[in-house]
Amino acid sequence: MKVFKITESVTKYTFGKPINTEAVVLTGEECFRDSLEFLKVKYNQELELDYDMNTQDVIWGLGENQRGMNKKGGIYESFCSDDPRHTPDKKSLYGAHNFIVIDGDNKFGVFVDYPGKVTFDIGFSKKNKLKIIVEESNVDVYIIKGKSPKNIVREFLGIIGESYVPPKWAFGYQQSRWGYKDSKDIKEIAEKFIENKIPCDAICLDIDYMERFKDFTIDKDAFPNFKGFVKEIKEKGFRLIPIIDAGVKIEKGYEVYEEGIENKYFCADDKGEPFIAAVWPGVCHFPDFLNSKAREWFGLKYKFLTDLGIEGFWNDMNEPAIFYTPRGLKEAVETAKASEKENLDIHSFFALQDVFSKMANNIADYKGFYHNMNGNIVNHYKVHNLYGYNMTRSAGEAFRKINSNKRFLLFSRASYIGMHRYGGIWTGDNHSWWEHILLNIKMMPSLNMCGFFYIGADTGGFGSDANEQLVIRWNQFSIFTPLFRNHSAMGTRSQEPYSFGENTKEIITKAIEFRYALIPYIYSEYMKAINNRNMYFMPISFEYNDEMSRRIENQLLLGESLMIAPVYEENAVGRYVYLPEDMLLWKVRDYRNRKYEVVKKGHNYLNVDFDEIPLFIRKNKILVLGKSSHNVESLDSAELNVIAFVENEANYIYYDDDGNSYDFKKGKYSEIIICIRKNNEDYEIEVKNKGNKLVKKISFDIVDVDGNIIKKIIYL
Amino acid sequence: MKVFKITESVTKYTFGKPINTEAVVLTGEECFRDSLEFLKVKYNQELELDYDMNTQDVIWGLGENQRGMNKKGGIYESFCSDDPRHTPDKKSLYGAHNFIVIDGDNKFGVFVDYPGKVTFDIGFSKKNKLKIIVEESNVDVYIIKGKSPKNIVREFLGIIGESYVPPKWAFGYQQSRWGYKDSKDIKEIAEKFIENKIPCDAICLDIDYMERFKDFTIDKDAFPNFKGFVKEIKEKGFRLIPIIDAGVKIEKGYEVYEEGIENKYFCADDKGEPFIAAVWPGVCHFPDFLNSKAREWFGLKYKFLTDLGIEGFWNDMNEPAIFYTPRGLKEAVETAKASEKENLDIHSFFALQDVFSKMANNIADYKGFYHNMNGNIVNHYKVHNLYGYNMTRSAGEAFRKINSNKRFLLFSRASYIGMHRYGGIWTGDNHSWWEHILLNIKMMPSLNMCGFFYIGADTGGFGSDANEQLVIRWNQFSIFTPLFRNHSAMGTRSQEPYSFGENTKEIITKAIEFRYALIPYIYSEYMKAINNRNMYFMPISFEYNDEMSRRIENQLLLGESLMIAPVYEENAVGRYVYLPEDMLLWKVRDYRNRKYEVVKKGHNYLNVDFDEIPLFIRKNKILVLGKSSHNVESLDSAELNVIAFVENEANYIYYDDDGNSYDFKKGKYSEIIICIRKNNEDYEIEVKNKGNKLVKKISFDIVDVDGNIIKKIIYL
Repeated sequence: MKVFKITESVTKYTFGKPINTEAVVLTGEECFRDSLEFLKVKYNQELELDYDMNTQDVIWGLGENQRGMNKKGGIYESFCSDDPRHTPDKKSLYGAHNFIVIDGDNKFGVFVDYPGKVTFDIGFSKKNKLKIIVEESNVDVYIIKGKSPKNIVREFLGIIGESYVPPKWAFGYQQSRWGYKDSKDIKEIAEKFIENKIPCDAICLDIDYMERFKDFTIDKDAFPNFKGFVKEIKEKGFRLIPIIDAGVKIEKGYEVYEEGIENKYFCADDKGEPFIAAVWPGVCHFPDFLNSKAREWFGLKYKFLTDLGIEGFWNDMNEPAIFYTPRGLKEAVETAKASEKENLDIHSFFALQDVFSKMANNIADYKGFYHNMNGNIVNHYKVHNLYGYNMTRSAGEAFRKINSNKRFLLFSRASYIGMHRYGGIWTGDNHSWWEHILLNIKMMPSLNMCGFFYIGADTGGFGSDANEQLVIRWNQFSIFTPLFRNHSAMGTRSQEPYSFGENTKEIITKAIEFRYALIPYIYSEYMKAINNRNMYFMPISFEYNDEMSRRIENQLLLGESLMIAPVYEENAVGRYVYLPEDMLLWKVRDYRNRKYEVVKKGHNYLNVDFDEIPLFIRKNKILVLGKSSHNVESLDSAELNVIAFVENEANYIYYDDDGNSYDFKKGKYSEIIICIRKNNEDYEIEVKNKGNKLVKKISFDIVDVDGNIIKKIIYL
Repeated sequence: MKVFKITESVTKYTFGKPINTEAVVLTGEECFRDSLEFLKVKYNQELELDYDMNTQDVIWGLGENQRGMNKKGGIYESFCSDDPRHTPDKKSLYGAHNFIVIDGDNKFGVFVDYPGKVTFDIGFSKKNKLKIIVEESNVDVYIIKGKSPKNIVREFLGIIGESYVPPKWAFGYQQSRWGYKDSKDIKEIAEKFIENKIPCDAICLDIDYMERFKDFTIDKDAFPNFKGFVKEIKEKGFRLIPIIDAGVKIEKGYEVYEEGIENKYFCADDKGEPFIAAVWPGVCHFPDFLNSKAREWFGLKYKFLTDLGIEGFWNDMNEPAIFYTPRGLKEAVETAKASEKENLDIHSFFALQDVFSKMANNIADYKGFYHNMNGNIVNHYKVHNLYGYNMTRSAGEAFRKINSNKRFLLFSRASYIGMHRYGGIWTGDNHSWWEHILLNIKMMPSLNMCGFFYIGADTGGFGSDANEQLVIRWNQFSIFTPLFRNHSAMGTRSQEPYSFGENTKEIITKAIEFRYALIPYIYSEYMKAINNRNMYFMPISFEYNDEMSRRIENQLLLGESLMIAPVYEENAVGRYVYLPEDMLLWKVRDYRNRKYEVVKKGHNYLNVDFDEIPLFIRKNKILVLGKSSHNVESLDSAELNVIAFVENEANYIYYDDDGNSYDFKKGKYSEIIICIRKNNEDYEIEVKNKGNKLVKKISFDIVDVDGNIIKKIIYL
């Protein structure tokens, strides 16, 4: 064991010879320690970390995962998995995020930096035993200290490097569906949004835009003049966001295939031949994203699309998902052929069914190919969780070469900590299940803890058929997530905002308008969270220290001013909300109408009709708000609306920047610093403008603890 | 359309020539009406019933089904299905229960008596449209009127005949697991219960007790002297409950097979040959339970086991479940053989996977066999939902021949209304998912509405691995369900009460003890519910008329005195509870310790530690309670404990009978009628004993609305 002091609060313990995942950007200095803090460690073939939890301990983290924000009770396996039917018993989802925070008498974070399978048994096998098992003893374990979970997260965000920042337009609404097959379909979608006056910034292109599912090609029948079409749609106010898949079709003459073969850029099998597995295009090779040259090569392929006017992408199938390999298919077919007698015994029958059902994403296949990491040949299975990460890194690094000061939109399905510097994520193929709204809510702060800020789920659910209520309630939550995309699978019921009745369309439209009106706050909080290493979404106990706050699994703090309490149950027209202090409630039907109510600290039952979105403004906090428009670029920023709930003094820094470049990193951003101070019956307002040239007027609704409203206007 | 007046409140509308399902026991007299009340009807090939719901309408019913007690938002297909992975998108579960109650400005019930597929689209396709689609126009539709849902249910229970009554011992705890393979295993289980002093009445035998899964055989290696073993185990205090499967193994010389062939008692294929499909024993034939002679024949086969001392059974695989047929297997293998090229296109690949994954319970197979119903040859698909019903009827009718005045325990997986007269049900192969505890809670009153009273779920979950908390919380709910059985699948984590740590064992044991102490109340309420056509479990709005009560999906009324509010969320040590009136809370850790608290009407947050079971006694209601023991027969009934929450007057009828015979139907039962009347600072207690010879003493805890307790004792 070697020990490194990374920062004052972070120590790294190195066992064996870990593969450098580049999750952490700081190296630190070697120091001496003969044992780990907090954890018992055992290692031989595997490495095991043990901790005795108290009954009251809460365990936060693990990013994209099942169960509660409090991960207690579960067993989790970090192993990026394409499992669209992720029922509660599934242990692995699309991402692998090995960071947890123990929040008890001891408070500390653990990051297990190992790119293969890591198991977190958090009170599953024994109710108060935390056990982390790493499949090999080559691993870096980071222990992060801090006086509170919030501080521990800040320390952790400090060592993994700054999170991805998308262009501002990416905070607009995105419409997607696997099944929009050609320019006619896309145009029709665009027209529907325009006709129905529903704000929207982008339409995603799923696999059908490509020629036979080949990356960096366009199906010319579906899109005869793609470049012209991109321009035409952009003039209507929408950007197109094409999908890029990990697998490269094996096809003679196809440039990406030919170049990959020529330069040995594909992952290889045990004979050194390009590894073969089938995904959408049929049999494919897989770019070796862990090979820096291959990564650079593939990334620059995106230029084919950026040259056509594309400014955003989603990287899919990069766990990597495998439908089948020749090995698996052969095994299955042979088993089937051997079953050609009528009275198959029942165990043979189940074995036969299994061999077909388990052909996809089979561990034997993951163990059957290799990466070339700077000359070292590494079995894929051991570095599995780095694949999607490095595919997205490949694109992210290329964008800086393609246009060094332009932000591109990029989000990925698979991920590992480290990838958060290059792109966002969506939470994979969920379902139109009410349970998956709640899962969506719970995942958000856990992902923030692991560095992922540009995040969101497939609103309305990807698989299964949605009903109106569910699409309404899911949109009413997703308006708060940085990535706000309605996406669904081919063959499921349509769930665009206008796909249901008039009343449902109206409700969803009002919700989306509210999102656009919230963008000044959302963008400001997003950017400040990243710049100050705060979280955008937090469990409420990260701010409030009472015992009850630690139990709340269905409310979130959003930025520094808001608390949200989404409705996620069928037929519910109300819900319970716990308030750790008095807050100001605004039930939003139409963001233009403001009606506030002071809700008292404690347990409350809230009526929430189908067209209502409850929003809580914390005490002595400020919400800034603008006006909706048809897309982000057309937002009118001349007037800012402030809603403040003030007992004595509230402060807010409203951040803004150009939304497109990285100039903010050089200090080119603006701030409007607002301070409201109660002064007898009135308020003193102080506004300092540091460089904002758009806002001309700020209208204030200041509400006191008794619910009295004072309105003020300040011109800048 | 023909119309029949069944009772004052029930009208039957007959379309075409329906098959007589015998769900309803009354025939009524023909009368004239030219249209249905409430519903619009369209028919041609299909029959469609339409109703425009109001937003506030609640739709109750549908028995064993997904989603809420309020069925709004869902689409449901009545088609008994063996689907152990029943995620929220699944439309069919194991039972088919076509009764709903519309609870709005109009209040009425609808029972669609059709034994094939019926679809209930309850605001799924359009949020306020109720649409019922029957696949053919040969159907009886019953419209049931009443002034409240409770009255409508009572009317409905009146036309479908009296529900099944099990022996009293069946209200004890049952331990089960697929995987207890022989007498040694069973004995070990029994010993563990004895050693740990955990009350238990029965141990279930899953498929392994049989010789190669053949019904009415005993594996002689596993149970060398079965009769002796049954006796031995019974002397230790436990009954054995063997499973009976629907499929009969094709095996020359096997009596059941030979007799079935000889007498043409098996379902036939389209050539008139016995239909072949594989289940646990490999290829099987299926007794034609719709043929009255075959039904009688199969039922009397149970005598093989009753002669060995068996007094209870569970009927399984009777949807009927089909793993594969020669047709399906051949199709799959042929598809596999045709796929023997490496670059399978992706659609062919999915088709290949599908043909294997969809081999089980395939509609083509259900359409491929026939029943002989009194000489009429009927395709199985059209009467699919009658199969499990008539298998259980087969046993139920036989028991009356085997021993006419003895109650046998009998519960089934598949069911249709009508079967409620012959046996209970368990809710099929659920999972160790928290979501399935909630589903369990919601199903219970819906099943009562459809006549099923002896009901319960696999406590702890059948599939997937359970953790300690989940098993604790599930047991804490199941102590209230008439069927209380812990059951799990082979290969999953063990979940017997003693399988976890000492503390968990203690908590579950205390919960089971509480169950046994509650048996006086549970049995009394069960019997009175059946005799008076009331429900045992009710949504709280069936008793309370306020708007909020209609929204509550996670609390139940249990009998006439209690309300329960189970905890069903991971890590939760509290929950919200809505009280429509003041109630008396008893948080039960150990039923021997009584501490009460008056909880005020309205919304309440309740702390509920892992070892606590919150129980609410309604105002002016009485709970009767006994003492726990190791099994039901050994319960000491000499002392009855009464806990009463009295504002002015509370009345209770404590019912009891011999627990074993049907003499209660001839009036041979006892009642103790208790009346407690507040009289200034004191209470008048009146106790009338109508024939109870066991109770000698009643101890009273009488609590007033301020929480003051008065203790009294009355000797009988």
